[in-house]
Amino acid sequence: MKATIITIGDEILIGQIVDTNSVSIAKKLNAIGITICKKLSIGDSAEEIVAAVGDAMQESQVTIITGGLGPTKDDITKHTLAKMFSSKLVYDSVEAEHIRTLLARRGIAFTELNQGQAMVPECCVVLHNAHGTAPGMWFDGEDGRVVVSLPGVPFEMEHLMEDIVVPRLKERFELNDIVHRTLITRGIPESILAARIAEWEDALPDYLHLAYLPAPNVVRLRLSAYDVDRESATADIEAAFDRLHNILGDNIVGLEGDSIERHIHDILTARHKSLAVAESCTGGSIASKFTAMAGASAYFHTGVVSYSNESKCRILGVDASLIEQHGAVSQEVALAMAEGVRGVGNADYAIATTGIAGPTGGSEHKPVGTVWMAIATERGSRAVMRNCGTDRSQIISRATAYAIEMLYEELKAYNNEHNNA
Amino acid sequence: MKATIITIGDEILIGQIVDTNSVSIAKKLNAIGITICKKLSIGDSAEEIVAAVGDAMQESQVTIITGGLGPTKDDITKHTLAKMFSSKLVYDSVEAEHIRTLLARRGIAFTELNQGQAMVPECCVVLHNAHGTAPGMWFDGEDGRVVVSLPGVPFEMEHLMEDIVVPRLKERFELNDIVHRTLITRGIPESILAARIAEWEDALPDYLHLAYLPAPNVVRLRLSAYDVDRESATADIEAAFDRLHNILGDNIVGLEGDSIERHIHDILTARHKSLAVAESCTGGSIASKFTAMAGASAYFHTGVVSYSNESKCRILGVDASLIEQHGAVSQEVALAMAEGVRGVGNADYAIATTGIAGPTGGSEHKPVGTVWMAIATERGSRAVMRNCGTDRSQIISRATAYAIEMLYEELKAYNNEHNNA
Repeated sequence: MKATIITIGDEILIGQIVDTNSVSIAKKLNAIGITICKKLSIGDSAEEIVAAVGDAMQESQVTIITGGLGPTKDDITKHTLAKMFSSKLVYDSVEAEHIRTLLARRGIAFTELNQGQAMVPECCVVLHNAHGTAPGMWFDGEDGRVVVSLPGVPFEMEHLMEDIVVPRLKERFELNDIVHRTLITRGIPESILAARIAEWEDALPDYLHLAYLPAPNVVRLRLSAYDVDRESATADIEAAFDRLHNILGDNIVGLEGDSIERHIHDILTARHKSLAVAESCTGGSIASKFTAMAGASAYFHTGVVSYSNESKCRILGVDASLIEQHGAVSQEVALAMAEGVRGVGNADYAIATTGIAGPTGGSEHKPVGTVWMAIATERGSRAVMRNCGTDRSQIISRATAYAIEMLYEELKAYNNEHNNA
Repeated sequence: MKATIITIGDEILIGQIVDTNSVSIAKKLNAIGITICKKLSIGDSAEEIVAAVGDAMQESQVTIITGGLGPTKDDITKHTLAKMFSSKLVYDSVEAEHIRTLLARRGIAFTELNQGQAMVPECCVVLHNAHGTAPGMWFDGEDGRVVVSLPGVPFEMEHLMEDIVVPRLKERFELNDIVHRTLITRGIPESILAARIAEWEDALPDYLHLAYLPAPNVVRLRLSAYDVDRESATADIEAAFDRLHNILGDNIVGLEGDSIERHIHDILTARHKSLAVAESCTGGSIASKFTAMAGASAYFHTGVVSYSNESKCRILGVDASLIEQHGAVSQEVALAMAEGVRGVGNADYAIATTGIAGPTGGSEHKPVGTVWMAIATERGSRAVMRNCGTDRSQIISRATAYAIEMLYEELKAYNNEHNNA
């Protein structure tokens, strides 16, 4: 079972938006056993839409289209699809009433343009968009092929996929499973890793496909199985990953979804320990990572973004003379920040960052990208310096990742000692 | 001048990664006057690559391909392109030496797999990748058509585009300009907005294309001009936006790139005023938004993520009895947090958030998504409650946006009074 995803909109082609809709649709289709053979983005042009949808219907049983369903003149998807399926637009009074109600709730008048949104191709099945004013549409083509048109607003598309399109596809087609599992490794470069696991790779069952996904300090290994039985494929993948654990040991972080902060989240929650963070150059980014996870309030109580010297002294109790003597970006100040926030936050563990995020503020001795990070625990505190790159956003995200990794190492070391004791 | 962008990798088709490479490439090509007619993502399959590149070369003068150039078995782009251009792979000793040096600097051994990375199709121009081990490749096809293959690692691709591909394309082709300008409006729904500016829209010069880009509370209006002279098109667009200011007044936020936090950044910097934030449910996300901007340290000194009641009392000085009486998510606590952080941070302006980000913790009276946000200034303080949705990440980002908007309103009100006085 193959599908094509087509996203429509000039804003995609000129790079004005990042297309996350196709990511979400791909995941949802994979989850029910439908393989995406192609993703395509085209502009708001009738000619392009006709060509792309026509090709997609040749190549795949399911075509999902997003975008171009708004009320304004630049949105032409609906008219184009109606023509393609030799159908005329008709007024759908149920949808019209829904749109009127939705707008009234927000205190917005129902205009002629909204009335146009209630016009739908006569031949399609209207997919009711409970969260927006543009209905989705389901077209049945030849040989049981399906074309679905959805609005481009992400959460409207999400609900339509989840509530209507996925159930209808499952009903319509007999689908086998697709299974993907990804293991995260760290600290081994891709080429070395590939050599080290070559034998393991050769011994994989033929139907399991291995992919390497490299990123700084991390290589993700994905095993995929298409058109299979979920249970037996999952068992084979898990067995393969078990064998990999014997080869790579501590270089394995865990399964994807298990980010390092997720591991820390689990460890701190289980051990009933708390975390405080003091951030200078990372500016709230470390706190955000933890608080983004539901349940973080169990261990995360306090973050301080101390962006000025005064704030470092006043809130964290850093000694002003330390800053004077060593500068705000120094081992001494990083340590004092970690210890300070551990105290003021009454926490078991504390991490701190202080660095030069740039683009200005660097010197020969401390160039842009210099970041000191520190950890404080009941066992004492320590700090390390790392160069985190040259670009401001890169520096912030790397410093965030390194500081979180420092905490993870500490928690793992504790666990190891504890388990060996 | 048309281009097609092809991104290769199963990880894109299964929705494992968000494709930002094509966004960046599209922007860079638009900036030199090349229009993207299609973006395509396909899997690591020789057959698919041959078909996609073949089609792209029919449809456009320039084809840019990313991905599939790693050292491992799943990367087949290079071999496939060599075959397509009837060329054999040859060893490039300059690239080999570069790869060896790059790896040595990181303390990594040069393996057989890395040696494979120095093999390049004989017919191509090798594009030296100063930041990575996979060189880019430039192929000259029939009729002056060009195919460029780049590594998928974003910053390696970025440097190759910027340093080598863009200059070469400018040299090779005579290019006219493409101009895009986007104005951000807020507070008017798309359909109402379209009706209100219909006359303005009809009066636009034919060669300017208008697009509506709606998002919650915001509609962006983009004017695009293709194959033009940059200066005169820019002048026409600016004149059109000026006329729009007369129609929409305060509902215009400004040009894109001018985010609301960017406006605040500029206002506070110019007025030498400072900002402190106290965050509960937004968990550091507001602080991150400001500290992401270079120069934020001029006005942003202090953020406190007070995720627990104790932390709200201890660091911000919130009266524990307020929390007991009204709950942590209440008007009273939001106000006390804003006033508290304004004091402890010694700031002119302070904003605070406290809410229920979910998925648990909601009640009938205060459902998940309930967020109180407050602002404190020398003129006093005030708080508002807003429902920010149902999904944790959505709640965090909406609460962040609303709190920032509240500050913006305050600064604008001050400016208006000040200017009228």
